[in-house]
Amino acid sequence: MSIETQARAARQAALTLAGLTADDKNAILYAIAENILANASKILAANKIDLDNMADKESPMYDRLTLTAKRIEGMVEGVNVVAALPDPVGEVTAEWTAASGIHLKKVRSPLGVIAIIYEARPNVTIDAAALCIKSGNAVILRGSHGAINSNRALFEVMCEGVSNAGFNPEIIQFIDDESRNSVKELLSYDNYIDVVIPRGGEGLKKFILENSKIPVIASAGGNNHIYVEKSANFEDSVNVIVNAKCQRPSTCNAVEHILVDDYIAADFIPMLYNALTAKNVKVLGDGFAAEIQEGITLATDEDYFTEFLDYKLTVSVVGGVTEAIEHINAHGTRHSEGILSENAAAIDEFVKYVDAAAVYVNVSTRFTDGFEFGMGAEMGISTGKLQARGPVALVQLTSERYIIDGNYIVRK
Amino acid sequence: MSIETQARAARQAALTLAGLTADDKNAILYAIAENILANASKILAANKIDLDNMADKESPMYDRLTLTAKRIEGMVEGVNVVAALPDPVGEVTAEWTAASGIHLKKVRSPLGVIAIIYEARPNVTIDAAALCIKSGNAVILRGSHGAINSNRALFEVMCEGVSNAGFNPEIIQFIDDESRNSVKELLSYDNYIDVVIPRGGEGLKKFILENSKIPVIASAGGNNHIYVEKSANFEDSVNVIVNAKCQRPSTCNAVEHILVDDYIAADFIPMLYNALTAKNVKVLGDGFAAEIQEGITLATDEDYFTEFLDYKLTVSVVGGVTEAIEHINAHGTRHSEGILSENAAAIDEFVKYVDAAAVYVNVSTRFTDGFEFGMGAEMGISTGKLQARGPVALVQLTSERYIIDGNYIVRK
Repeated sequence: MSIETQARAARQAALTLAGLTADDKNAILYAIAENILANASKILAANKIDLDNMADKESPMYDRLTLTAKRIEGMVEGVNVVAALPDPVGEVTAEWTAASGIHLKKVRSPLGVIAIIYEARPNVTIDAAALCIKSGNAVILRGSHGAINSNRALFEVMCEGVSNAGFNPEIIQFIDDESRNSVKELLSYDNYIDVVIPRGGEGLKKFILENSKIPVIASAGGNNHIYVEKSANFEDSVNVIVNAKCQRPSTCNAVEHILVDDYIAADFIPMLYNALTAKNVKVLGDGFAAEIQEGITLATDEDYFTEFLDYKLTVSVVGGVTEAIEHINAHGTRHSEGILSENAAAIDEFVKYVDAAAVYVNVSTRFTDGFEFGMGAEMGISTGKLQARGPVALVQLTSERYIIDGNYIVRK
Repeated sequence: MSIETQARAARQAALTLAGLTADDKNAILYAIAENILANASKILAANKIDLDNMADKESPMYDRLTLTAKRIEGMVEGVNVVAALPDPVGEVTAEWTAASGIHLKKVRSPLGVIAIIYEARPNVTIDAAALCIKSGNAVILRGSHGAINSNRALFEVMCEGVSNAGFNPEIIQFIDDESRNSVKELLSYDNYIDVVIPRGGEGLKKFILENSKIPVIASAGGNNHIYVEKSANFEDSVNVIVNAKCQRPSTCNAVEHILVDDYIAADFIPMLYNALTAKNVKVLGDGFAAEIQEGITLATDEDYFTEFLDYKLTVSVVGGVTEAIEHINAHGTRHSEGILSENAAAIDEFVKYVDAAAVYVNVSTRFTDGFEFGMGAEMGISTGKLQARGPVALVQLTSERYIIDGNYIVRK
């Protein structure tokens, strides 16, 4: 089947999917979950081919690619969790009567067809499809080269599940073509596909933004900051920063850069340094910080733009909240930015002027996550501004239509 | 000044604008309005140069380009109307505490920097700037060749107004370069510009969608349908269709295609035909319609995809609501689609499955408009699905950030 045929089939299938009840969609998800479990050995056999094909068995990629019976159970659990979430489709978010007498309702509706272009981990195949189906969207999956056998097996098992539940399996499409041209071609079908969501590294994201005729919901990395204002409690602040850096350094909501008010720098930086180095964090910093604390290495300009995703951060001294805001807006990626402070005016200024999806006041940045926000499973964290900032959960995979009714009303 | 310098200046100015109160922004708008009135003669003189440069004095473009004292008053009135609208920025749209104890607020915030690329009418220069400023966004204006003198004068007068009010005029930027390359260059600055909004014809829209690295909010034309279900009241239905076609045929929310249930076709089509031809509407149609009513010309396949924007429409016979929905989803542009019916099941199916920004039940399609919806002035009607479907009014020029606070809370 050509990619165009698949895109067209997805559009056609989406039209029916849009009208399914929550019960219908949950029946599909439960049937998918059941069929994954029933076919665990088929999935593991396909995964083994991908693993055997991988040259570097020591790389973290190898671990991410590896499926086990336990990981398959985790995927199934993920599908069940999505089924248990409330269905956003059909919700009336506003209702009013206009001057002319027309009665308007804003109704949450599926986006239509969502293409997910993703790298590495095969569980995205399942997660992404479950989220799309629950939000009433058809999904086109285009995974990466290294996981193609695993992804294909998961796709086949999902389609069987949809059929078992008595619905049209064409709501899930899988692009079984590993060439970059297949992505380019997919990105040209704006007549069939409503949204593209890349899930992977910066390179993939850039390629998609540059080549897509279809609107994109993209995540950038989180080059996140925490600013320690002079009124902050030192001990609590150190705790929050250590948590934001060390609780899981490889995540996009970990903190990468600390800004300290010059008024407290001489007292606070040594305390912070000791706590961080006790956790094996490498501390870089500006000249002021390096002067205050031996062991702090001078950071380069590039370091300030770097998302380390590791036990490493920079500490710099700033002349107050306004300078902190300027630094953040110039270096951040609009993901998660925090202030530690007990001064209402400083907090207010920070919250008003920092341009980020999530702005934290006396809270670790590690909470930017659909589950932690109470929004449920998500497709990623949007750092764009259209449609959604922050977690892209079920609601963010819908849009609102207007339904207008009246008694044969005409415009005067 | 280079385009890049302008884009960077807009980004810088946007950061301050984001924190202004409604009173501040209204003061800017009133000062702009006042300064337009005070400089009416300068604006008219600039407009005269554009008019003199135009070869075809008989074209509708000439009329659209023409400014008069009365039209300038209309622009000023438009600015005052925007000032009177409620400020969407700062609105807390949701607030909750998550399991961890973090307290979340979703807060409406400006998008940042909006580039408006528009054709013809100089009043867009003022309208677009007013909407952007009120929603806290900096604006980059790039008007068309033929109106450059008018647009430049309006821009200068607005900037003076902003300065008169005591604010930074860099919140409004004007690209004083008529080459298409200037548009291409502008569309590459995704580091400075958050959203691009084209306002003009299909050609402009396509060019922008294909060349932009920046997210786009675009309007397609409205290839709109009305389906007459068999339970509809004939007389009322004819009234609604005549209104939807004739009240202002050149608009994107006018109806272009009528689908009639075959059960009523023989009775309804002649009635409709007589009412339409009495208004000088040319009626095309399919073989069934042409057989029922003499005078109906056979429509081509292309006609069904054509937004006539004129006293012209097609009438076709369909075998029921499901076929009507299929026809609409295959031919429509997801703008405004209507059903005339008194049958709840048919209405329900239509509303559920028709994929359009506005779905009308027993109402003329002519209401898809910010003012008619009670949303105030708008930037256009979005036929895309991300961010906004339908009228792009003030609220649609904002997005929601999360503000999270707590008592030094860390992630477990």
